[in-house]
Amino acid sequence: MPTVLEGGFELDRRLEADTEPLFWLGLCEMRLMNDRRWPWIILVPQRPGIEELHELTPLDQAMLTFETNLVAQGLKQVTGCTKINVAALGNMVRQLHIHVIARNEGDPGWPGPVWGFGQRDPYGRTEMHEIKEKLKRAL
Amino acid sequence: MPTVLEGGFELDRRLEADTEPLFWLGLCEMRLMNDRRWPWIILVPQRPGIEELHELTPLDQAMLTFETNLVAQGLKQVTGCTKINVAALGNMVRQLHIHVIARNEGDPGWPGPVWGFGQRDPYGRTEMHEIKEKLKRAL
Repeated sequence: MPTVLEGGFELDRRLEADTEPLFWLGLCEMRLMNDRRWPWIILVPQRPGIEELHELTPLDQAMLTFETNLVAQGLKQVTGCTKINVAALGNMVRQLHIHVIARNEGDPGWPGPVWGFGQRDPYGRTEMHEIKEKLKRAL
Repeated sequence: MPTVLEGGFELDRRLEADTEPLFWLGLCEMRLMNDRRWPWIILVPQRPGIEELHELTPLDQAMLTFETNLVAQGLKQVTGCTKINVAALGNMVRQLHIHVIARNEGDPGWPGPVWGFGQRDPYGRTEMHEIKEKLKRAL
């Protein structure tokens, strides 16, 4: 009963505070991390009570793979980055969410991971508008 | 031509040095990171020249999702861990490989990521044998 499932879904408050909405995909809400150090997308499957990838149904797992790789490919094309980092960690925010991050040699923390590195650097209003439009056009 | 593809595959030397073989799955070789701080599995799709998840064929992407989630579920069951961390980063070793790591509250670096945290702590010979057998029985 997808309607019931979707009806019961609420976005984690911390994810909501740290990110800006971009798109609704078939399974996931796609959001932009408000941190100008890296182009960083968050995918949140709209399924309540799920913490681990393997808790999704096989169909949702397949959908998530499709959406993740679509976003990763688009992000690589639009940024021309060195490497895409994809991860589902959830040690702090337990609601299942997938990070898709464009990394470049010499970016903050390179080649280490982004999580826990330094302080978040929010976009300015105009800058946020521009990157959202750029990502929307490309993806 | 899978035979030709598999014939052209060679495991990255750093991955080979840091990990121990566990299983051959349909797509991936499954290896154990030789670091006793965390139960940490590495899946390496046996496809030459692939650096990003989205470079795999759709069939291989589906296979990888299946194998990753199978391993994640098994690792969670056998360790009883708090959270599974799944990631494809590749900033240092470019050959596509997927990390599946059992994390526990209070483990080294918790709740931060494991990559780049402290120094690797290799298993002793007996300990390595025991964890490999335990994982083989469970998975």
